[in-house]
Amino acid sequence: MSQSNRQIRLAARPQGDVKPTDWEHVDVDHVAPGEGEFAGVTKLISLDPAMRGWLNDARSYIPPVGIGEVMRAGTIVEVTESNHPKFAVGDHVVGTFGVQTHVVSDGRGCLRVDPSAAPLPTFLGALGMTGMTAYFGLLDVGALKGEGETVVVSGAAGAVGTIVGQIAKLKGARVVGIAGGQEKCDMLVEELGFDAALDYRGDDLRGALRAATPDRIDVYFDNVGGEILDLALARLNMKARVVICGAISQYNNSTAVAGPSNYLSLLVARARMEGFVVFDYAAQYAEAAAEIAGWIGEGKIKTKEHVVSGEIDEFPETLNMLFRGENVGKLILEVA
Amino acid sequence: MSQSNRQIRLAARPQGDVKPTDWEHVDVDHVAPGEGEFAGVTKLISLDPAMRGWLNDARSYIPPVGIGEVMRAGTIVEVTESNHPKFAVGDHVVGTFGVQTHVVSDGRGCLRVDPSAAPLPTFLGALGMTGMTAYFGLLDVGALKGEGETVVVSGAAGAVGTIVGQIAKLKGARVVGIAGGQEKCDMLVEELGFDAALDYRGDDLRGALRAATPDRIDVYFDNVGGEILDLALARLNMKARVVICGAISQYNNSTAVAGPSNYLSLLVARARMEGFVVFDYAAQYAEAAAEIAGWIGEGKIKTKEHVVSGEIDEFPETLNMLFRGENVGKLILEVA
Repeated sequence: MSQSNRQIRLAARPQGDVKPTDWEHVDVDHVAPGEGEFAGVTKLISLDPAMRGWLNDARSYIPPVGIGEVMRAGTIVEVTESNHPKFAVGDHVVGTFGVQTHVVSDGRGCLRVDPSAAPLPTFLGALGMTGMTAYFGLLDVGALKGEGETVVVSGAAGAVGTIVGQIAKLKGARVVGIAGGQEKCDMLVEELGFDAALDYRGDDLRGALRAATPDRIDVYFDNVGGEILDLALARLNMKARVVICGAISQYNNSTAVAGPSNYLSLLVARARMEGFVVFDYAAQYAEAAAEIAGWIGEGKIKTKEHVVSGEIDEFPETLNMLFRGENVGKLILEVA
Repeated sequence: MSQSNRQIRLAARPQGDVKPTDWEHVDVDHVAPGEGEFAGVTKLISLDPAMRGWLNDARSYIPPVGIGEVMRAGTIVEVTESNHPKFAVGDHVVGTFGVQTHVVSDGRGCLRVDPSAAPLPTFLGALGMTGMTAYFGLLDVGALKGEGETVVVSGAAGAVGTIVGQIAKLKGARVVGIAGGQEKCDMLVEELGFDAALDYRGDDLRGALRAATPDRIDVYFDNVGGEILDLALARLNMKARVVICGAISQYNNSTAVAGPSNYLSLLVARARMEGFVVFDYAAQYAEAAAEIAGWIGEGKIKTKEHVVSGEIDEFPETLNMLFRGENVGKLILEVA
């Protein structure tokens, strides 16, 4: 019996904000798995700020999503039918299966996950790309030494930010988060143990950042770009490291990205600003995930997931929550 | 007999371009050297883009020149009277003696130089701070590997740029200079051996840079900032290094510095942008100078000095030549 597979495809390249008309919702026949393949039904879809970049027709670290193509996304599927020796019916598998309700896969680039080891959403969050991004960005690119250092992270209440802050904290650093709204800030300090959290919508972020970083900033982990990046550059300590992970404040600009006017602080502070792409660390994912799992087990890292339950048709709307700062922790669409 | 010492002092903090009224020309009595001191007469004064930064009242790598203070400058003096065991009458001494015709020193932070080993201006250029800046900026901060890499340097016909390009060349890299005007570009290619030189005043610098860097850019040594920095960021190769040495296009801005809009290329290219201050390498100056002297001796580095002869009163006017791009190589005022 033929089943219907609903796909969310890119219909047009967004100019500025992503609009409903930039997507098309299409039903196609769900094909049966061939020899060496399995079929699955989508349970969870990861929503990431990086997705905005994938929609632009520009040179980047991966090709843009093509017009008419199924939107790229990391997801977790449950195997419903299998001709693959390594995946059985009922298994949960994480992979870049895209925004669609049904998938067929030959198993390449996939990983079976064990729902008894951690809740499924955590495999897209702290134990998935999000955790890997925080781990390698902070420890390798940011070269965090730990005790005696001050780490500032922007987008602190987001998926990556919550993990960055907690890893920095368990390494002994002073940790300051920057987030939007008092509620998020309270959560960062009270629940996740940040030393301070600053509301960027407040009156005097410059003054607040100065007060919260008496010894200046050794590692600034940037998820947002724009004015916050500039304020952080002005507070760098000698030999500081600025980790460029993202720039969510700039992604929906239809005009040019605002470059950091204070970049000459890099000279004064003998500091460096460095970009990275987590895929480069693929060979070390397993080791990092094991270490993070250990920290979760010891209660040193609390996972934060923001799970929205709905139809796959709600993907476009859910994605825009990221750019409005409406999520706390890892944003996930749980497909009904 | 009391001699007069003419000093150029900072009278006001410049707003934008440095104006004649930002300086005062003052005669004071030249005092005799005390015990353990020597007196000297100024022969050569180094003019450096960094001087513009020293005039601003802002946190930087050294305190700003105070209002009413003698302008800071590296100079070479000839000893005229000495009560110092290590400096004899007739010796030439390099030090940060400032813009004045006569000096008295206890010898701290000074270095005797041998005019038979190299022409005196070279001790302010390739064998002085200029050479040190090029050497450590390119080889340590830029981590140049050499063969197979492409180096682009802006301000290429300036003091630091001419040395950077030649060191990169002798290390086996492909070298592209960016300079103002066809004459400077011809000199870089024909006289200094650059592989290509691009006139930034030309019609299509973006296209020219693309054509001159078929394998993209591995090290970009930036002396200028502004649009040229942005164009270079857009051409970075994977794991590229951007060395922030200066930003002469921005120094006379009375409004905010233009930040590099293309800084997110650092992410795409997994590249880093790093600032440095040459003073941090002081312990290694002697070793670097010896190596550069060797390269000069072998004809691998041609020194370029632009010596203006005149009264010390011409310092302010000579300094502004830098910002108008009127010098080729190291700009020096030879005091009549």
